[in-house]
Amino acid sequence: MGSRKRVVIIGGGFGGLYAAKALSRADVDVLLLDKTNHHTFQPLLYQVATAGLNPADIATPIRHILRNQDNCTVLMAEVARIDVGEKRLYFAPGYDGDVEVVPYDYLIVATGATHSYFGKAHYARLAPGLKTVDEALLIRQRIFMAYEAAEREPDEQERKALLTFVVVGAGPTGVEMAGALAEIAKKTLVHEFRRIDPSAARILLLEGGPRILATYPEKLSAKAQKSLEGLGVDVRTNTRVTEMDDDGVLIGEERIPTKTIVWAAGVAASAVAKSLGAPLDKAGRVEVTKELSIPGHDEVYVIGDLAAFEHDGQPVPGVAPAAVQSGRHAVKNILASIRGEPRTPFHYVDKGSLATIGRARAVADLHFAKLSGFPAWIAWLLIHILLLIGFKNRFLVLVQWAWAYFFFDRGSRLIHGMVTPKKAEAPALPSSRRPAELAMTSPAGREEASVSAPRN
Amino acid sequence: MGSRKRVVIIGGGFGGLYAAKALSRADVDVLLLDKTNHHTFQPLLYQVATAGLNPADIATPIRHILRNQDNCTVLMAEVARIDVGEKRLYFAPGYDGDVEVVPYDYLIVATGATHSYFGKAHYARLAPGLKTVDEALLIRQRIFMAYEAAEREPDEQERKALLTFVVVGAGPTGVEMAGALAEIAKKTLVHEFRRIDPSAARILLLEGGPRILATYPEKLSAKAQKSLEGLGVDVRTNTRVTEMDDDGVLIGEERIPTKTIVWAAGVAASAVAKSLGAPLDKAGRVEVTKELSIPGHDEVYVIGDLAAFEHDGQPVPGVAPAAVQSGRHAVKNILASIRGEPRTPFHYVDKGSLATIGRARAVADLHFAKLSGFPAWIAWLLIHILLLIGFKNRFLVLVQWAWAYFFFDRGSRLIHGMVTPKKAEAPALPSSRRPAELAMTSPAGREEASVSAPRN
Repeated sequence: MGSRKRVVIIGGGFGGLYAAKALSRADVDVLLLDKTNHHTFQPLLYQVATAGLNPADIATPIRHILRNQDNCTVLMAEVARIDVGEKRLYFAPGYDGDVEVVPYDYLIVATGATHSYFGKAHYARLAPGLKTVDEALLIRQRIFMAYEAAEREPDEQERKALLTFVVVGAGPTGVEMAGALAEIAKKTLVHEFRRIDPSAARILLLEGGPRILATYPEKLSAKAQKSLEGLGVDVRTNTRVTEMDDDGVLIGEERIPTKTIVWAAGVAASAVAKSLGAPLDKAGRVEVTKELSIPGHDEVYVIGDLAAFEHDGQPVPGVAPAAVQSGRHAVKNILASIRGEPRTPFHYVDKGSLATIGRARAVADLHFAKLSGFPAWIAWLLIHILLLIGFKNRFLVLVQWAWAYFFFDRGSRLIHGMVTPKKAEAPALPSSRRPAELAMTSPAGREEASVSAPRN
Repeated sequence: MGSRKRVVIIGGGFGGLYAAKALSRADVDVLLLDKTNHHTFQPLLYQVATAGLNPADIATPIRHILRNQDNCTVLMAEVARIDVGEKRLYFAPGYDGDVEVVPYDYLIVATGATHSYFGKAHYARLAPGLKTVDEALLIRQRIFMAYEAAEREPDEQERKALLTFVVVGAGPTGVEMAGALAEIAKKTLVHEFRRIDPSAARILLLEGGPRILATYPEKLSAKAQKSLEGLGVDVRTNTRVTEMDDDGVLIGEERIPTKTIVWAAGVAASAVAKSLGAPLDKAGRVEVTKELSIPGHDEVYVIGDLAAFEHDGQPVPGVAPAAVQSGRHAVKNILASIRGEPRTPFHYVDKGSLATIGRARAVADLHFAKLSGFPAWIAWLLIHILLLIGFKNRFLVLVQWAWAYFFFDRGSRLIHGMVTPKKAEAPALPSSRRPAELAMTSPAGREEASVSAPRN
């Protein structure tokens, strides 16, 4: 391999990207691999899902971000498995159907987390989560298709189910989704429909634990819940979904008919981690050493959401600052090893946490201050805009938010992509429909009921 | 039905939308149907395909545009067929799998044109055209995936094929696509790759006729061709594609290996037209009466790209102004009929035509002036921004264009949606690959060739 070392980074999220940047002046070859061609600002994916922002506002091609870093090559490729013994990794088949093998001297695994459906595999299709641009667009499609279908639907029960939106899990993502869904129903879509009243839509936020935003101070949790309830969200704590299908969710004995479910509950480490052969915790995260490498392989680092590390005896949450800090520390240790110096343990610096609740309301735990309401929202806005990559993106996002703030408009309400009504994948006859309704659907029978324009 | 008449409009493009608006003060019920939920500004779809603009910049929810028009109901629905005898139409099955029937008093059919592959059905998958947001995103995906795959590809022949882009048809859309593709290769992607030189990409514009932009004055055609060639586009007139497959196009005896083909050649009327039972021209367009209705059915109007009408003995081209004018005239005749007054014949007013060629160059035939170069580009820019619906869209598009103009940046280069490498649909083994190359693809054999980062 010559004397110049090769550092391979898997994943172009916050951890992988900042690790690559930290290597910009190092005398090494860097190879950054990602399944997609873009870095995604995950904290704002819920805004893409709810049509407040465009995908391109919160995602940037990775090779564009790193274009001036000459020692770094970016490849769009999915890693199938890692062979830590041979120090090489295998790509999944790509565009041309071939498999490639990549040797490394040092490896940083930063593939992040994915959704955990707690063993219920069929939930994945019914209740997408919010980790990628594609998932955000799928959720957007379902939300706005539900309103479109409701406007066409003559049956009242069906219409109610279409206008019921269920968010499972009340961490920051769930809280932000529920708030935005309420805003869409009460503000954005007003005046746009003739047969349904969008503001009658029901938004449920279901949380298994005793309170929402469990990692925040109790007082902020309570304020957030009050804000959400003020927006008309039905917040239910200590509530677990026990089953779901195409037509609703089951909470113990109670069935809630719905066509749109968003999953914001469990996270699990991504699959490639298993091939490392390192010990995993219950959530599937890799139990790293204090130096962030895996036991027995000082050249293999795991960072970000995929790594399990502690801070003050508590597990560090899967947030961007933790990914950035661990990515930079892994690089520090790699460079120390190359110089033959001792490695140092990682210490996480917690800078606080933030979550928005609809328009102009938020909660923020910044340690030196605990904010809620409008001041917290301004803090949230500024911090998120500053964290976005690219000046143009920041400016465009600011314009779109200003517009949305003054006009309640969500301009990106396009339904595009493969429109996949869940029904199409399900058995031909919707199972929960009563025969009486099915009989009503013959063209002659429903003609006047279904298509009369209002006569005013 | 009572005394209030129902006007049903099929299609929310320029024709249908302006027809609905023209009915805003009429004492009728308006029902506007569209397959999608958005009005698309088709002249700028090539900018979405080439990552210059976001879908939401050029598309707006139809019900949002018409939200204040109380006599108008908008439904997202696909019309399967029209029964002009019974005066009713049938929806294709929707989200809930039901079929609905809609009666009308007056009907305006504005479903526009689709691609014509001249009977070669397999071209559709290989060479998508530019009529919808989904098609534009598919083309975007293929363009940028080709560069990503080329960066991964060790075989030189394959890499050359990946970096060859073929545009079939040199009307305004084909010319604009070819210009934008050249810009991406020479400007946008510079510095972003380590193993390939994007500026070495080959862009071919193939035109079956003797000159590009055939409907423009000859002098402007010549100027446009010169501009394109200045950008490095290989323009070939009198050149017909005789066959294509996953790995290239055939022009007579010459085979051009390519993985990315954009279809900008033929248009055909959409299928629903056939169920009208009216006479169609060779291109499948409906031959309307002077009043824009179909023979024998004064209550059924056909407008826009779907209608075949003449102006000064020449067929009127499928452009937005023709759609708007015919839509408004159909409404005028419907209102005349309701009042018991005679209908009037339609006269098209030609306001000129415009096409851009990459950055800051265009040709414009405005009758009172024939422009080319920078002045034509400024005219093109202003006219297109003014025609966009929504102030925010206009502003955002202006910002993005200004940005692109100064920095050559195309910010929307995200590859998302169902990434469908054409290969995945093709037979398992790429047919045009020579066995020698296939043998090279074993992991061990290509290891160093394929993944060495540059050592500089």
